[in-house]
Amino acid sequence: MNPSAPLSFEPPRGMRDFYPEDMLWRNRVFDAWRQAAVAFGFQPYDACVVESLELLQRKSGEEVSEQIYHFEDKSGRHLALRPEMTPTLARMVAARHGQLTFPLKWFTLAQCFRYERMTRGRKREHYQWNLDIIGEESVSAEIEILAAAAAGLRAMGLPDAAYRIRVNNRALLAELLAKSGIDAAYHPAVFLALDKRGKISDDEIAALLKAEGLDSDAVAKAFELLAVQTLDQAAALAGADSPALAALRELFSLAEVYGIADRLVFDISVIRGLAYYTGIVFEAFDTERKFRAIFGGGRYDSLLTMIGGAPTPAVGLGFGDVVVVEVLKDLLGEAAAAEKRGVIVGYMFPEQREAATRLARTLREAGETVDLQLGRQKPKQFFSRASASTAADAVFIGPDDVARGTAKRKNLATREETEIPLN
Amino acid sequence: MNPSAPLSFEPPRGMRDFYPEDMLWRNRVFDAWRQAAVAFGFQPYDACVVESLELLQRKSGEEVSEQIYHFEDKSGRHLALRPEMTPTLARMVAARHGQLTFPLKWFTLAQCFRYERMTRGRKREHYQWNLDIIGEESVSAEIEILAAAAAGLRAMGLPDAAYRIRVNNRALLAELLAKSGIDAAYHPAVFLALDKRGKISDDEIAALLKAEGLDSDAVAKAFELLAVQTLDQAAALAGADSPALAALRELFSLAEVYGIADRLVFDISVIRGLAYYTGIVFEAFDTERKFRAIFGGGRYDSLLTMIGGAPTPAVGLGFGDVVVVEVLKDLLGEAAAAEKRGVIVGYMFPEQREAATRLARTLREAGETVDLQLGRQKPKQFFSRASASTAADAVFIGPDDVARGTAKRKNLATREETEIPLN
Repeated sequence: MNPSAPLSFEPPRGMRDFYPEDMLWRNRVFDAWRQAAVAFGFQPYDACVVESLELLQRKSGEEVSEQIYHFEDKSGRHLALRPEMTPTLARMVAARHGQLTFPLKWFTLAQCFRYERMTRGRKREHYQWNLDIIGEESVSAEIEILAAAAAGLRAMGLPDAAYRIRVNNRALLAELLAKSGIDAAYHPAVFLALDKRGKISDDEIAALLKAEGLDSDAVAKAFELLAVQTLDQAAALAGADSPALAALRELFSLAEVYGIADRLVFDISVIRGLAYYTGIVFEAFDTERKFRAIFGGGRYDSLLTMIGGAPTPAVGLGFGDVVVVEVLKDLLGEAAAAEKRGVIVGYMFPEQREAATRLARTLREAGETVDLQLGRQKPKQFFSRASASTAADAVFIGPDDVARGTAKRKNLATREETEIPLN
Repeated sequence: MNPSAPLSFEPPRGMRDFYPEDMLWRNRVFDAWRQAAVAFGFQPYDACVVESLELLQRKSGEEVSEQIYHFEDKSGRHLALRPEMTPTLARMVAARHGQLTFPLKWFTLAQCFRYERMTRGRKREHYQWNLDIIGEESVSAEIEILAAAAAGLRAMGLPDAAYRIRVNNRALLAELLAKSGIDAAYHPAVFLALDKRGKISDDEIAALLKAEGLDSDAVAKAFELLAVQTLDQAAALAGADSPALAALRELFSLAEVYGIADRLVFDISVIRGLAYYTGIVFEAFDTERKFRAIFGGGRYDSLLTMIGGAPTPAVGLGFGDVVVVEVLKDLLGEAAAAEKRGVIVGYMFPEQREAATRLARTLREAGETVDLQLGRQKPKQFFSRASASTAADAVFIGPDDVARGTAKRKNLATREETEIPLN
């Protein structure tokens, strides 16, 4: 390494820097996530972004497994930057299964990494809000999670009309595939292939299905199912006694009570890419479908068994920080997150520094945000900096103010002034 | 990989899991950090934990460089998990030097990794609160950062008497070493060697200094300096016109105005291990010195130049999440972070589920934390779960409550009950 060669000031490819103006959006999203999770009684948990490679490979679908950042530590341990939080959650729950009281409602804000090609502005890391309910078999779990996600979107300022949550049940698809004569052994491959719809052509999907061993007739039947539009059409195929359909109907009925029915839509083409979903699955999109999915998730009743834990039903949601900010900026404008608050305090000569510092101390101890200027400034200099700052109010202290024992607190937007005591 | 072999449920060695009870402490610390940073007008920033290896090696001391987790991505890029945030901050500032208004006051909560031997319960990752002021030459920067750190400690409940901030000035040490006839070329090595005091024996330090080329006389003089106890003793050696001493005196005088002078102590042995400090350095310890440093930092005026940016004065603080929680638990007790809040809502029969759900919805929309039970429970079952939960109040809805249109909200600690309307 040549110590005098110029270094790049860019972050590594695919990684993000957050300058203060970027943090306005990020905090808006993170704060809304935390607020909604707490309002719904979810408990916080977290784990290190570095996870054992074996755990991650054990449960993820093949595509995710190929995209894992992995490395060996100095003792030869196979480690990785997690691509998602669910395997870690399953590990943590399995480790304390006997001591935990189920159902658990847990949430986290987790950074996740995927080594993807840099198409369509995709980044290689993002933050993901995870809500999981573990140990509840009924759709009470699904609706609680969907309502919390809706509360999160409302808290960040997205109007209810701006998005739709598309819901399906993999168990319903499985019932329908079985009735079409497609054996259960083929279902996982069919799910993964059909999930690629819209990303690759139907011909390519058909080729994938044939490669898995389905004949032309079975492939045609698999595509036919995707033409189902309503629960009643699904009932006509699955039969009125279908348990998968009953679960969906109960979910839609509970959505009325939770007040989110206006945003819930049945969509048989929602399948989700991950291999481990067993029941209801869902994805939220902006209503105009201009962006990728805002969040997604579903029921994964066999995951704990897959990693060697006790059989435990579970539902989870993953909600990334990238798409929702694109949707919010598109709808509300880039500047919407800007917010003026607190006070900027400056002073004219070194003799007023003590008064300025004491005022800053008093205001801070009272809970206010105070940006104390670190050196003396001319009034013009100070007020020019004040207007460009994030402060709502400004106090500039000169010799006369100290003599009088009061200064003026000026609202920078309205120019209104109020007198405040010094000391 | 054998897909049926049992997996370990432990996190990778040196990495931490945070269960909800661990998050109580973590949130207490993180919330205090954010609150103090905002009160002092620091702006948030962040960057990915994955950083370019070259940037990290360029500025860190040798010891840190050996402890970096590094790996290649699939394109052969040399990447690393950052051991500290300062190089990344310097890179971000250098990248936008022309567009930023100085002085900057920025903060972040950053996860950092060091591959260390697992002695004394040290972990390989921790979170660090970073406060930095960039572009300010005077000790206004140092005192603002120290006062913000003190506000953070107060916000997390640590009494002022429980810790002391030990302050020194590397420039003072440099003046004194020069007066002892030790050439400036040796100073960096002397700083790093003397910083190891208490960790290795004085004989080992002397051996290190000799290996760097100091003779026995110079080694003895270096140790003599560490006997200096007060600023007046330092003045006797450095001369009354020492600029390094003047900076320290100004810092102690400003500490009076900020109200933190009771916690500030001059300590010539505080040097800090990192190579890039140029001026005032500081470390905070619990008063009884039972634990490692709570936070540390100092002035690093040449770092931006080192990575190829424009010369810019800077002061920074790093405050980890591990030691402070040890200190807090030792002082306040393990259970101090526990906090009961919000309402747990349950119901007796499926017929009351809708009323319970509607009540949860109303309370949540009013900003309350509501843990809605997901299935029916017997009263005994519900109240046993309620007592074990983090909820302060409980509402259990039976058929009579729905008939009357009101339910009882019970404070679980005082057993006081108040009537609340259903719907």
